[in-house]
Amino acid sequence: MSDPILHEDPRSGNCYKIKLTAALLGLPLATRQYDILAGETRTPEFLANVNPNGRIPVLEIDDRFLPESNAACWYLAGDSALIPRDRFAQAEMLRWMFFEQNSHEPNIATLRFWLHFVGEAQLSPQQKAQMMAKRIAGCDALASMDRHLAKHAWFVGGAVSLADIALFAYTHTAEEGGFGLGDYPSIGAWLDRMRGLPGFIPMQ
Amino acid sequence: MSDPILHEDPRSGNCYKIKLTAALLGLPLATRQYDILAGETRTPEFLANVNPNGRIPVLEIDDRFLPESNAACWYLAGDSALIPRDRFAQAEMLRWMFFEQNSHEPNIATLRFWLHFVGEAQLSPQQKAQMMAKRIAGCDALASMDRHLAKHAWFVGGAVSLADIALFAYTHTAEEGGFGLGDYPSIGAWLDRMRGLPGFIPMQ
Repeated sequence: MSDPILHEDPRSGNCYKIKLTAALLGLPLATRQYDILAGETRTPEFLANVNPNGRIPVLEIDDRFLPESNAACWYLAGDSALIPRDRFAQAEMLRWMFFEQNSHEPNIATLRFWLHFVGEAQLSPQQKAQMMAKRIAGCDALASMDRHLAKHAWFVGGAVSLADIALFAYTHTAEEGGFGLGDYPSIGAWLDRMRGLPGFIPMQ
Repeated sequence: MSDPILHEDPRSGNCYKIKLTAALLGLPLATRQYDILAGETRTPEFLANVNPNGRIPVLEIDDRFLPESNAACWYLAGDSALIPRDRFAQAEMLRWMFFEQNSHEPNIATLRFWLHFVGEAQLSPQQKAQMMAKRIAGCDALASMDRHLAKHAWFVGGAVSLADIALFAYTHTAEEGGFGLGDYPSIGAWLDRMRGLPGFIPMQ
């Protein structure tokens, strides 16, 4: 069995989640890099061999290809302490990971991509028309996190889990999408706890 | 330990997923019903006791409250055959469940809610401005599903799993959101396989 290979663009928080999971667990992880903005995940080769959806991240494990960042984190974490064993706690961890994909990433990551990488002047009228809805929904997601973190050090139980990793990726870069994190003091303290974890690696 | 209680609006596909999981497994499930459109999940009582986000579904298990439909399905499925045990297959199942929450539900379920329940004439300018992007992204999601189902009877392995249940909920009602399923023949055949499962219950 060879080391897993992450097909990634290093600017993507979804890709970073997987690298952070591997780093916290001390697991080897090879990478292949693509420039999303240059269309390198839309080439015939990529679509035929890596992901027919043209998206990254994809985790390659012995010639099998696994898309979706949080599923790749789940695979890597295996039986480690990053996934609680208790049935309810495990469901709670997944609850925050589904929240991340449904209420957080589509708003907070998308505004970061549009404003920080594409540039507001380059946005289509259709993209511009979605900005306000994404701003409001992103603030709602941050408020939900802050409310939870005001009472708990981590998203589930007494230790870091995949839920924290999944939510860290696009929360710690939220200001690049125009979200002011000063309004969410409990998020700020949790970001610092994340950065202090043994094995932690920054995004770039 | 008392029976789990589902806090739900029966018109919601996210709530139906949880009822379908329980039905396929023959598990008891009590329900408490709320009218989302009448604001019944935004009352001070609901926010204080069930979910501070004002959303359903929420699964109540011995006075603990679990939001997020796919997390609730995971909890109910426990060690059953609806969750494959193989590590890669389990990650693949979660891959489709994260896809459902990120690429499918925000587009296909939202257009159904806006067009079928709220009514196009009642939509805000902000909602109207998002319709075209949601239409395109929803068609992309259906095309991804159809491509997979052209080669596989189920989303993961050789049997129904939570991935099929999660994706069935808003796919079988997609026409209420203006999506024509005739363009996706492999999805049609899979919907029929789902309806033929022992224990299957329809949405209403």
